[in-house]
Amino acid sequence: MLRKDKIASNQGKLGVLVVGLGAVSTTFIAGVMASRKGVAKPFGSLTQMARIRLGKRTDNRNPLIKDFVPLASLDDIEFLTWDIFPANAYEAAMKAGVLQKQDLDAIESDLKAIVPQKAVFESHYVKKLHGEHVKSGANKMELAEQLMEDIRKFKDAKKISRFVMIWLASTEVYVEKKPIHDSLAEFEKGLRESSVEITPSMIYAYAALKMGIPYINGAPNLSVDMGAMQTLADQNKVPIAGKDLKTGQTLMKTILAPGLKARMLGLDGWFSTNILGNRDGEVLDDPESFKTKEVSKLSVLETILQPESYPELYNDFYHKVRINYYPPRGDNKESWDNIDIFGWMGYQMQIKINFLCRDSILAAPVSLDLVLFADLAARAGMFGIQEWLSFYLKSPMAAPGLTPENDLFIQQVKLKNTLRYMMEEDLITHLGLEYYDMM
Amino acid sequence: MLRKDKIASNQGKLGVLVVGLGAVSTTFIAGVMASRKGVAKPFGSLTQMARIRLGKRTDNRNPLIKDFVPLASLDDIEFLTWDIFPANAYEAAMKAGVLQKQDLDAIESDLKAIVPQKAVFESHYVKKLHGEHVKSGANKMELAEQLMEDIRKFKDAKKISRFVMIWLASTEVYVEKKPIHDSLAEFEKGLRESSVEITPSMIYAYAALKMGIPYINGAPNLSVDMGAMQTLADQNKVPIAGKDLKTGQTLMKTILAPGLKARMLGLDGWFSTNILGNRDGEVLDDPESFKTKEVSKLSVLETILQPESYPELYNDFYHKVRINYYPPRGDNKESWDNIDIFGWMGYQMQIKINFLCRDSILAAPVSLDLVLFADLAARAGMFGIQEWLSFYLKSPMAAPGLTPENDLFIQQVKLKNTLRYMMEEDLITHLGLEYYDMM
Amino acid sequence: MLRKDKIASNQGKLGVLVVGLGAVSTTFIAGVMASRKGVAKPFGSLTQMARIRLGKRTDNRNPLIKDFVPLASLDDIEFLTWDIFPANAYEAAMKAGVLQKQDLDAIESDLKAIVPQKAVFESHYVKKLHGEHVKSGANKMELAEQLMEDIRKFKDAKKISRFVMIWLASTEVYVEKKPIHDSLAEFEKGLRESSVEITPSMIYAYAALKMGIPYINGAPNLSVDMGAMQTLADQNKVPIAGKDLKTGQTLMKTILAPGLKARMLGLDGWFSTNILGNRDGEVLDDPESFKTKEVSKLSVLETILQPESYPELYNDFYHKVRINYYPPRGDNKESWDNIDIFGWMGYQMQIKINFLCRDSILAAPVSLDLVLFADLAARAGMFGIQEWLSFYLKSPMAAPGLTPENDLFIQQVKLKNTLRYMMEEDLITHLGLEYYDMM
Amino acid sequence: MLRKDKIASNQGKLGVLVVGLGAVSTTFIAGVMASRKGVAKPFGSLTQMARIRLGKRTDNRNPLIKDFVPLASLDDIEFLTWDIFPANAYEAAMKAGVLQKQDLDAIESDLKAIVPQKAVFESHYVKKLHGEHVKSGANKMELAEQLMEDIRKFKDAKKISRFVMIWLASTEVYVEKKPIHDSLAEFEKGLRESSVEITPSMIYAYAALKMGIPYINGAPNLSVDMGAMQTLADQNKVPIAGKDLKTGQTLMKTILAPGLKARMLGLDGWFSTNILGNRDGEVLDDPESFKTKEVSKLSVLETILQPESYPELYNDFYHKVRINYYPPRGDNKESWDNIDIFGWMGYQMQIKINFLCRDSILAAPVSLDLVLFADLAARAGMFGIQEWLSFYLKSPMAAPGLTPENDLFIQQVKLKNTLRYMMEEDLITHLGLEYYDMM
Repeated sequence: MLRKDKIASNQGKLGVLVVGLGAVSTTFIAGVMASRKGVAKPFGSLTQMARIRLGKRTDNRNPLIKDFVPLASLDDIEFLTWDIFPANAYEAAMKAGVLQKQDLDAIESDLKAIVPQKAVFESHYVKKLHGEHVKSGANKMELAEQLMEDIRKFKDAKKISRFVMIWLASTEVYVEKKPIHDSLAEFEKGLRESSVEITPSMIYAYAALKMGIPYINGAPNLSVDMGAMQTLADQNKVPIAGKDLKTGQTLMKTILAPGLKARMLGLDGWFSTNILGNRDGEVLDDPESFKTKEVSKLSVLETILQPESYPELYNDFYHKVRINYYPPRGDNKESWDNIDIFGWMGYQMQIKINFLCRDSILAAPVSLDLVLFADLAARAGMFGIQEWLSFYLKSPMAAPGLTPENDLFIQQVKLKNTLRYMMEEDLITHLGLEYYDMM
Repeated sequence: MLRKDKIASNQGKLGVLVVGLGAVSTTFIAGVMASRKGVAKPFGSLTQMARIRLGKRTDNRNPLIKDFVPLASLDDIEFLTWDIFPANAYEAAMKAGVLQKQDLDAIESDLKAIVPQKAVFESHYVKKLHGEHVKSGANKMELAEQLMEDIRKFKDAKKISRFVMIWLASTEVYVEKKPIHDSLAEFEKGLRESSVEITPSMIYAYAALKMGIPYINGAPNLSVDMGAMQTLADQNKVPIAGKDLKTGQTLMKTILAPGLKARMLGLDGWFSTNILGNRDGEVLDDPESFKTKEVSKLSVLETILQPESYPELYNDFYHKVRINYYPPRGDNKESWDNIDIFGWMGYQMQIKINFLCRDSILAAPVSLDLVLFADLAARAGMFGIQEWLSFYLKSPMAAPGLTPENDLFIQQVKLKNTLRYMMEEDLITHLGLEYYDMM
Repeated sequence: MLRKDKIASNQGKLGVLVVGLGAVSTTFIAGVMASRKGVAKPFGSLTQMARIRLGKRTDNRNPLIKDFVPLASLDDIEFLTWDIFPANAYEAAMKAGVLQKQDLDAIESDLKAIVPQKAVFESHYVKKLHGEHVKSGANKMELAEQLMEDIRKFKDAKKISRFVMIWLASTEVYVEKKPIHDSLAEFEKGLRESSVEITPSMIYAYAALKMGIPYINGAPNLSVDMGAMQTLADQNKVPIAGKDLKTGQTLMKTILAPGLKARMLGLDGWFSTNILGNRDGEVLDDPESFKTKEVSKLSVLETILQPESYPELYNDFYHKVRINYYPPRGDNKESWDNIDIFGWMGYQMQIKINFLCRDSILAAPVSLDLVLFADLAARAGMFGIQEWLSFYLKSPMAAPGLTPENDLFIQQVKLKNTLRYMMEEDLITHLGLEYYDMM
Repeated sequence: MLRKDKIASNQGKLGVLVVGLGAVSTTFIAGVMASRKGVAKPFGSLTQMARIRLGKRTDNRNPLIKDFVPLASLDDIEFLTWDIFPANAYEAAMKAGVLQKQDLDAIESDLKAIVPQKAVFESHYVKKLHGEHVKSGANKMELAEQLMEDIRKFKDAKKISRFVMIWLASTEVYVEKKPIHDSLAEFEKGLRESSVEITPSMIYAYAALKMGIPYINGAPNLSVDMGAMQTLADQNKVPIAGKDLKTGQTLMKTILAPGLKARMLGLDGWFSTNILGNRDGEVLDDPESFKTKEVSKLSVLETILQPESYPELYNDFYHKVRINYYPPRGDNKESWDNIDIFGWMGYQMQIKINFLCRDSILAAPVSLDLVLFADLAARAGMFGIQEWLSFYLKSPMAAPGLTPENDLFIQQVKLKNTLRYMMEEDLITHLGLEYYDMM
């Protein structure tokens, strides 16, 4: 039983293993450090800022989530990172250009202490990048073991009691799911034989799960979205979550599409374009990496709108997503959506959304929440796919046979009711007839 | 107990009493007629198009709402209207310019048969309009009785078994709530003395409630949002709902704001401007009518964002709503919203939304749903404020002591769980742990 | 000397030879017919609507251009068309979906009388189209002769006194200029040998110039932008103009960029995206046709901004143009431009332009003006490249050694001063010191 | 005769008298200082950056304007300012929030040396401001004399050889032109009697003209747009220019409207809204100051589009300008324009422009150019209204009987041809027939 008394203690150090030390990672790490020092606020994070309603509306019980469930404290976090460049977190953050110099200077020494380990990397899987700070080994299994060795050394050096790993590195080229991804035995054989079907992100995931460490897939890569990894997660009783952090345009889409559907407004087309000029934009300028991202971004409308249930409204909409590398913008991604809808008697309307966004600013709190909730899940004895964390993910994994849920608001209800369930509080249904004396 | 067996039959004619025969009313009426004839679809209407999930996701029980709860059929609807111009519904629809001639011609004779009764009206309450087709009487009570007489004649002529009244006429000037509005006795005295505090919309509402007819307030007018009317509704066991149909910009706001709050993104400012050129735009060019509308439109952000719970995120946002009369557009209202948000570490972002909307196209299905659900509620023995219909309302009424709920998604859960409750189905919590074998 | 008395008479019928009978052509033809009948106005056309200032501002001499220079009358126009589908102009216009049925019905019989000749066409040059109504011949020279024969028959049948040919058909695949395009002898040899370097648009142009008929290139195809054709135009004393009608986004660009440069505002980047769903959009979905269009669209900023003269302002701007086939829109192309500029001390600003455009509505009056001005030029004895018509063209041809002029306002001054020059009026310099007594 | 040899020398110090030390003034002054030091570039300024074409296109003569006409050097500028707050230019710039701290720090001591004189001011004329650092005197004439005394002291202290005064302070309340403004004698009588019809900006203008100092009116205030001042300017042979610096939305309007008219595209409506949060926005929140601004902003379309010449295109367009005080934005004004146009056969299109602007960044180089060109005009012996500077002005003054010219491109031709005329170069007509051998 999931009972609150069975949740293991949140005391001791939490080792956060961050793959990639680019714009998102450095923004995430810097924000944790700045929040700890009290020089910035972790806006955007539910674990740090949000409240949860308990009981009836008139009970006025709305504690902070972090006072309601036993999360790890920011003060107990230690970071270990890997990257294909040797720059420390301060240097990497300056290069990323997301945070202003004055904000980084306030935590300069903390950031400089974060020096990445050599990465597992091959240009074959991310065509636009050429790393220099990479591991070498006889085969992919050996690379996995090197990662595990990095983690063990870190554990000893920092006296870590438990870990979470999160992938915040680049989008890999599109990989079709093959038999090798379905069976753990085949996969391990592939590791030993350095199969081309095994990408770096899978090697990291394998290392984590093998050590019983929860793994979060922040990119649209296959990673843990395959039978082999799920078998391993079940064997070792480890929570996993993915794929792809839900930020920017897709976040807006999963806010707006549920609204259109709630009102039974039909959809003729949804055209989404993006301009961005950071390393992410450069990577996605490669059609093979873009394909991976596109599949992730395109899926959300179908599952929200359910054309099979509403053929007259949603059967024939035209959905197109474009990502354009546009250097003048740096990390300040801008999206433009044009949405052609129709209502009563088929009359047409248009919605246009222009989002002057900062990708890493949206991704950082999502990273933090996923890490802290995955750690909570592990301590609560939950393992395998954590569907209740779909709220944070662009292309969430779900149990076999279930359609993933992309509606942000259903995801939110699911997340909050899961927390209430963990702590044995009543679930909220918003029925609310008890406030009225009406029959 | 609300038990499905106690819901009275949906057989017999439903008389829909529509106050005002302008753009929204004629679009609503024309769409009902066209849907009946099969020449158009009632897109945008939950009662006609939406499904409701019952049981577990894997049960695949998703009936149409209209097959789940016993609603009145479109074929059983008869319309009675009042307007300050004598034009019939065909002429009024042509003048409104919302629907195209070819669509109106397909139902020309049906529309021409809808000829409005003389209205209760005074220019004092809607400065920009000057009606010619108005009732006269010794005092306001006598006007109310004339309305009731209109309804009785209609009932006999058409063999109506039950009614719903909906106000779809203009926004009246801003009226402060006074003692006269709180007590039924004082209010009735005011009617007899033609008190200036009693506006035409209150006279219609009084006539409806007095006859036990559910009343829906589609404008931001005070109407039934006052003690006197609520006392009368309780006495006569009549459902009431209001205020102001949720369409266009406010609909978008109650979709987007819950999304921002779900992600704990802070708000610096929200600037909303509208351009529209129909009669509604002209009426709102009068500052006194605009005030009524503005109060209705401004309230939604506060109740969704809860600055008292989230002072760091929402205490100081600047919210401004402008409505501009701009004749080139006719009924094709266009809104532009600029939203200044902030996230992780306080970094700022901007969202801009441009909605090329058609107000009446959005309002018509909302009118239909409110009418059919209000009739259902009456047959189910529910009375007083129907908070579960907040989903359709810009400024929903709630029980004393409750903060109105403006979040479209909570409103939707509330509406659907109310229907499930009526029919004795399990309420949905989206917990969904049963699909996973994870501990 | 260009003297007004030497301009040949505008009397007699003008045969307008239109290649392609798609959205632009049918809109052009329908508008001419509707204007003749007085059921519509030829808005957008300088030859029909514009005035020209003569003399000093205080002289108040502002005749209509058509009263100032001897243009052909709309009443004297006869159309001959070629297309790869046999549909007549009424059917083709209905399919194009630009003009509403009621507008086409008012000129139905006139439009039905326009039945296209079989086209010279090969799918090789427009990958997305597959025509059925095409000429066949032993070689490309024979096809050219068939076109000339079509024209001669039309001349006799309709008693035409003079002609202009305009290409309004699709964008062909990108063709590099080769030696065969430079020499008339080589080109004619290529025609006889059916060289793959000779595209259909060149065959039409050759036929026209050979017969002494002015040729206007409304697409970005090479067509007459090559030495062989210019030699032929000079030999036969025929005016030519091209390339690519200036409409929509590029029109906006050549309005706005001169404004930015006038004020010495620097440019970091200009991102242009388009969504459109007509046959043009489908053709441009083929990368080879898009390349031709892209070259045409990209060139305008460089020549307006002159980075070689203003390296600090315009050396490094990033210019990207995207065209997306998006069927929900039909002919109603929509463009979105994001422009990153900088001013005083390097501070940055952004301009975003969203144009809900109708491509054919903008192209039709441009087609009419080009036809009428080309005819005027021919009668005035002008031949070769008509740079003064750059005003209407996206990628104007200019004399060897001259940079093309893309600034709409310089183009306008050039056009109007050319007309003044033809008619021996003073050129306008806007100096205007004569109105002031200031020294 | 205006001959280049008669232009007086540009040697010696130029005293720039700046009224108001707010966002625009401090940005202007800081930019001049930073440019002098080489730490920033004066982008946006024609006098510093632009070239001018001389002779034929093929001559390749394109000198910088500053190398072509004898302008004052930035190094020779000295500033004197007046403001209602005693803060020095560094403090005022920090408060204005336009320029970043690091940019101001590079010129900190220069800026701190600029300490404003007490201002002539009354809250009656700018309702939203309450100054503390103001002059007092027996009557308005005495205040004018105090200003002249300030200037004389500055002249002696800094060894100034000539001056220009520019008003960069707030928009005053709307003032109707009355007889007192027409006659110099009446006006001087009014000064002595402290007539309420005489606003502070008139007092400054009077002081300047009385001393023979060119006066530039950077706001929409009446100031020198009246007979009394023009008489004085003629008497003392002083150049004057105004009203209202052309920046932001109006700049865009005078770029775009000429483009629409060039193409004979009709206009149904133009809706312009602005959000800004600086002192300017606060001042314009007062309806009386807004009226002054509105008149200035509304006038431009009429004079560009000439509805009297083009009634079918421009007779009935609906033009509305709104300015909204929106504090989250500070000086980063944002404008949104919706433009409803129509073309061929009356078909409608829409253009939407969203300008994320920085008002002061656009106004600063305009201020510099107006100052340097006014000084040049004075040295060239030109006096009275300088219509050739309309290029920089939102609501330019023109000779009696002339319609002001608002088309940015005609204004630009006028400006450049005036410079060519001064220096005895050929005027440019863009005829360009000489490049072609075509008859």
